[in-house]
Amino acid sequence: MSLVAVGTVAFDNIETPFGNAHRVVGGACTYISLAASYFVKPVRIVSVIGDDFPEEMLEYMKQRGVDLDGLQIREGEKSFFWAGKYHRDLNTRDTLDTQLNVLATFNPILPKHYRDAQYVMLGNLTPQVQLQVLKQLKHRPKLVVMDTMNFWMDTALADLMKVLKKVDVLTINDEEARQLSGEHSLVKAAHVIHKMGPKFLIIKKGEHGALLFHRGEIFFAPALPLAEVIDPTGAGDTFAGGFIGWLAKTDDISFKNMKRAIVYGSAMASFCVEKFSIERLRGLTPAMIEKRVQQFAALVHF
Amino acid sequence: MSLVAVGTVAFDNIETPFGNAHRVVGGACTYISLAASYFVKPVRIVSVIGDDFPEEMLEYMKQRGVDLDGLQIREGEKSFFWAGKYHRDLNTRDTLDTQLNVLATFNPILPKHYRDAQYVMLGNLTPQVQLQVLKQLKHRPKLVVMDTMNFWMDTALADLMKVLKKVDVLTINDEEARQLSGEHSLVKAAHVIHKMGPKFLIIKKGEHGALLFHRGEIFFAPALPLAEVIDPTGAGDTFAGGFIGWLAKTDDISFKNMKRAIVYGSAMASFCVEKFSIERLRGLTPAMIEKRVQQFAALVHF
Repeated sequence: MSLVAVGTVAFDNIETPFGNAHRVVGGACTYISLAASYFVKPVRIVSVIGDDFPEEMLEYMKQRGVDLDGLQIREGEKSFFWAGKYHRDLNTRDTLDTQLNVLATFNPILPKHYRDAQYVMLGNLTPQVQLQVLKQLKHRPKLVVMDTMNFWMDTALADLMKVLKKVDVLTINDEEARQLSGEHSLVKAAHVIHKMGPKFLIIKKGEHGALLFHRGEIFFAPALPLAEVIDPTGAGDTFAGGFIGWLAKTDDISFKNMKRAIVYGSAMASFCVEKFSIERLRGLTPAMIEKRVQQFAALVHF
Repeated sequence: MSLVAVGTVAFDNIETPFGNAHRVVGGACTYISLAASYFVKPVRIVSVIGDDFPEEMLEYMKQRGVDLDGLQIREGEKSFFWAGKYHRDLNTRDTLDTQLNVLATFNPILPKHYRDAQYVMLGNLTPQVQLQVLKQLKHRPKLVVMDTMNFWMDTALADLMKVLKKVDVLTINDEEARQLSGEHSLVKAAHVIHKMGPKFLIIKKGEHGALLFHRGEIFFAPALPLAEVIDPTGAGDTFAGGFIGWLAKTDDISFKNMKRAIVYGSAMASFCVEKFSIERLRGLTPAMIEKRVQQFAALVHF
């Protein structure tokens, strides 16, 4: 089924205890679209870059079935840039630099053939931009998934609440769920957040896995214990891409199938963190992904 | 099968963000024995108390099939006392007071009918006492499970390493696994710790569940997401009691059955945290425990 994803396509500088990566390809929409492309084609992206973004990367995305018609390329301008440094535990990080560049004036425009999308992934961006994307759709999609972060809760809560009313699935981390709901217990937080709009809530806990809440039902998927995590950047976006990619492929948004979607998302995220940038998302095969899903089954089956 | 458990039987003062409990019954061996008693009888305990411990509690333990022949009662002395305060997230706590009292001179003596135990649970205590217990056994038990903590790694590492050589299963938390192994990755930590003796390693992550490592195989059990956690005190000991209780009941120490044992341990721990002290461990029924195990299955099955 048709899938539209909005988010950043960008450069990152990344410092981890295990090494550094300088001006590597990053951005929520990059990770989302590459992960989703292993399940469904085309993945229609809405984003903006400068003329500094590597042509090779755009070619690779096209090869993987990513539709770039909604990607604005601004001559003479620079792509969004983020620099961050991870702490020893890799669960927390400091932002060292953020250069909005082209993102400062981003006005998302959906090409005509995007506007009947059935599946929409709103990557982490200002809620205003997320709203503008939804407004251009001809009809309500079958499923809208939204990612956001504490920064928008602090600075744009009113707009964020408007978007929340229009989405089916919200993905945030545990601290953000607590902040948004005012509840410490994640079970109680889910009740509060359901009332804000999203019927489904996914709480991402990084190395501690992810929880799916829906009408009092709960599903939990662990993160795969890995001997080496090289770079957690993009893991959440890769998870979201795998999640919505699986749902769009199967066109089944039942709670039961969402469980499988979470496992596919977790499997994609487990690849993502094994190398810097999007490197590990290149050249995966369906068999490699299936094998990892089987590892998840073995991990929790009793 | 015969089960012997060593550990503290004590009083606790507990402060949580949700309330306080003053001089309530606590101690690793209390939690272990009550949890295990839902699976196997008798549970033979080795511990020491003063003459201040409530007779009613000892009567209740007897009723539940706990053999108190190895419990030393010292006239005119006081039981071990611990006071702690939990932080808002309930995952971390500060010790406010520790009064060793009878524990300062504890010399564990196993009654004769304890000495052919097949299953031995070494609750968190000084490694010296754990060693003394093992030395009094007539033959090597079928399974020795050991709990310990960072305090002994800091103050009695040489003795701790001696005990480790004699145990089959070690249960510690994630930070302790990192400290003991010197490895940040839990997968790598498990490899290092296996070489110290324990063929099985259980890493307890509190609200984030528990991992079982054995020869490159990994099993993960989440903690049950609860609307309200009242008091985490004793959850790890209750987990250990449910774990070894299930193994002693089924007399099957295969990796497959250890997975089930971990789920039963997690189920018992999920009850424990719902009330202060051991209150929630009174009056459970096999049906209540089975129902909770089914909730665990539903939580992770996909």
